[in-house]
Amino acid sequence: MAKSRQMELSEALALGPNWRHLCYVMLYAPNPGVLFGRIPQRYAVLMQMRFDGRLGFPGGFVDAQDRTLEDGLNRELQEQLGEAASAFRVERADHRSSLSGGKPRVVAHFYAKGLTLEQLEAVEASAPRAKDHGLEVLGLVRVPLYTLRDGVGGLSAFLENSFIGATREQLQEALRDLGLVAQGSFLGPRQPTFQ
Amino acid sequence: MAKSRQMELSEALALGPNWRHLCYVMLYAPNPGVLFGRIPQRYAVLMQMRFDGRLGFPGGFVDAQDRTLEDGLNRELQEQLGEAASAFRVERADHRSSLSGGKPRVVAHFYAKGLTLEQLEAVEASAPRAKDHGLEVLGLVRVPLYTLRDGVGGLSAFLENSFIGATREQLQEALRDLGLVAQGSFLGPRQPTFQ
Repeated sequence: MAKSRQMELSEALALGPNWRHLCYVMLYAPNPGVLFGRIPQRYAVLMQMRFDGRLGFPGGFVDAQDRTLEDGLNRELQEQLGEAASAFRVERADHRSSLSGGKPRVVAHFYAKGLTLEQLEAVEASAPRAKDHGLEVLGLVRVPLYTLRDGVGGLSAFLENSFIGATREQLQEALRDLGLVAQGSFLGPRQPTFQ
Repeated sequence: MAKSRQMELSEALALGPNWRHLCYVMLYAPNPGVLFGRIPQRYAVLMQMRFDGRLGFPGGFVDAQDRTLEDGLNRELQEQLGEAASAFRVERADHRSSLSGGKPRVVAHFYAKGLTLEQLEAVEASAPRAKDHGLEVLGLVRVPLYTLRDGVGGLSAFLENSFIGATREQLQEALRDLGLVAQGSFLGPRQPTFQ
């Protein structure tokens, strides 16, 4: 497997017709909920269990008939998340990073999109009726952003699950950069620069 | 942590008032679906992402006001899975095993309940509106029962996720004993006796 390499979006778009473009998005929303009456949840952040038994973000490959990367991404979201995904649109401005090297001649574009909690809950409600449910997608899960008293349960234990490609690191980076976890919260042992 | 020990249900029920009883269930249904036009799914089997970032089965602790273990379990299912859990009842006959040693003075009772695919899909649809959704339960996922061409993706990769207590081994055992995976299918490296 080639070494992963971050690239500018403009560079990725100039790669030519032999390359395939994969787009996926972290959907998140402010969440005033409190767990066990004492643990603020801060945000609801969505990932999904994939057909291969690994966690990842909703999205997929851009097709030849998609006019833009985001057209492809939003089409995939409707297939994976159902009708509630038509209530918003992931835009170019939501793009965070582009990465090559996971698979040969594939460049993966990572987006993050802020929703209202109502929009995110509507996605959770419509996903079990989506075209891909029970096939490519085995279920949506929220990411726990807190650490329980034992120092492991919560985000730390969640990050020990199986993730596809670079999604674990992209989750950690987005949680940090978007300020979705409290200052000093555990963000995982695999990327010491994130501590 | 004390060593895990299987016990008879009658022995567990005689443990006395200092012990707490935890009950959880594997819900499953025949599933004629085919992934990518070539991989039979055989069954839909449900697990959930828990508040602590680990996978487990729906269920919880039996309360003093519950008349039976199964009363407690079915009450928890309604809280975690929503209204669709009232369309069926997990019974004593669905009990598979009882295990002590996970936590002090806790005995965990594992059940498996066969549903119709319509009942299971109704559970998936009602779970996002359940009382515990987004709190104790972060989402339901189906277990992939197949192995992809790379020899890892599917059940094998799924079993590499984080699981609470003995649920990984209980999943493997139930899949084998109930015949939910094809003969010779991968059932995980952690229990060589299951191969």
